[in-house]
Amino acid sequence: MSENNVVTACCLIIGNEVLSGRTKDANLGWLAERLTDMGIRMAEARVIPDVEDVIIDAVNEAREKYTYVFTTGGIGPTHDDITSFCVAKAFGVKIHRDPEAKALLESFIRPERVNEARLKMADVPVGSILIENPVSKAPGFQMENVYVMAGVPSIMRAMFDGLAQGLVGGKKMNSIAVASYLPEGAIAAPLSAIQDQYSNVEIGSYPFFRDGHFGCTLISRGTDMDELEIVAENVRQMIRDLDGEPIDEDMITPADAGTSKDY
Amino acid sequence: MSENNVVTACCLIIGNEVLSGRTKDANLGWLAERLTDMGIRMAEARVIPDVEDVIIDAVNEAREKYTYVFTTGGIGPTHDDITSFCVAKAFGVKIHRDPEAKALLESFIRPERVNEARLKMADVPVGSILIENPVSKAPGFQMENVYVMAGVPSIMRAMFDGLAQGLVGGKKMNSIAVASYLPEGAIAAPLSAIQDQYSNVEIGSYPFFRDGHFGCTLISRGTDMDELEIVAENVRQMIRDLDGEPIDEDMITPADAGTSKDY
Repeated sequence: MSENNVVTACCLIIGNEVLSGRTKDANLGWLAERLTDMGIRMAEARVIPDVEDVIIDAVNEAREKYTYVFTTGGIGPTHDDITSFCVAKAFGVKIHRDPEAKALLESFIRPERVNEARLKMADVPVGSILIENPVSKAPGFQMENVYVMAGVPSIMRAMFDGLAQGLVGGKKMNSIAVASYLPEGAIAAPLSAIQDQYSNVEIGSYPFFRDGHFGCTLISRGTDMDELEIVAENVRQMIRDLDGEPIDEDMITPADAGTSKDY
Repeated sequence: MSENNVVTACCLIIGNEVLSGRTKDANLGWLAERLTDMGIRMAEARVIPDVEDVIIDAVNEAREKYTYVFTTGGIGPTHDDITSFCVAKAFGVKIHRDPEAKALLESFIRPERVNEARLKMADVPVGSILIENPVSKAPGFQMENVYVMAGVPSIMRAMFDGLAQGLVGGKKMNSIAVASYLPEGAIAAPLSAIQDQYSNVEIGSYPFFRDGHFGCTLISRGTDMDELEIVAENVRQMIRDLDGEPIDEDMITPADAGTSKDY
């Protein structure tokens, strides 16, 4: 745990296919939500290609800088799956065929189909701890503060659910959302004044468009719920002062998020 | 344009709300596809918070390393919109209120609603070129090889469509997809042999699950269409040799992408 009890994470999404646009990432948003719920702050996410040096550098930079590092992608049986190899190199250790992982795979794969490529999925860095894969057996692994998971969303999620109990979160970031049909440009100055007054609270403004009207949701985030309540009440009063009506709700939905055209 | 006619790009997605999971990014995948079509290779994408030092460092690192840098997010009227300020700092220049941008905003915003916060959206780094915003007027800007766009997907897309004609792409990456109902573990070894033979072509393997059957799509990517055809024919022959049936199609769809459980 780092100072001030702020626990941070970095997510490394590994895969050429995400960078080419062919595959749309479905892991980042899910992980971000889960980590936030656990009091772990995702401080950065990177999408990087299946290139050895790039992966090694990103892993080493991230594991130094953040409490936890989560990687997704590149741990299958084909030649373009190089994540395990790269993580071993990042830590300066060798890859070995983990006996437990090998036994797991051999119990799952029909005997006539066991081959070198399939068993490659039991190759993990020396000193790593296996991460269970309840979906399809081939494990991920943990190497110090780096957690290596599959890219397939259903498998990644199952792996994360298993490893989550071993993570130590910091103080949970709470949030209070107050929306109104006032546009951002109308509230910007008084909102900034509130932000200046409460430096422990982070206030974000997110525009929306709903039922033919523009507005924005103001989200106050912080660890101290009492202070958050005070800030939220300030936000509500500001809205009333501008002849708006505060709504205690997040008015952004995936469908209308970011469609505001008014300021 | 860098050596070997490889034109690269980095996408910086700026916003605490994406890292907290509250907002799901919808820009990366769209930009990746568009850039790929233009012969520009997205080499990296980062999601970073609304933190001054982090944004400045990321912009400076990316603009040094890649042909083009595209940022999304943080150019609105509220206190948490700090991207323009940070990009100016990254380039060591001042922010000024661009007269053209100011005039644009004043023609769009009702006179009684013009205020300092709304006009802040006309503040851009000295030396930058405005990027047109056909949706809601408030412009983005280009500073050397860095293109600063809105985070709102509809606005970002309109901005990109306008600036795209000014980008110079390299050789276009073409791709040929050949799918089959053979699992990855069956094709891994012969596929790797094909990859070893053709180093200019990048072969990726993407598992899928369809109609109750597992399989994978093998995507060959490269700039030389003749060589791609040869590689694809090698892939088809490999599939036939394994008693599979090659299908000239990308069998992954967003719905079933990454649900394979068989190797």
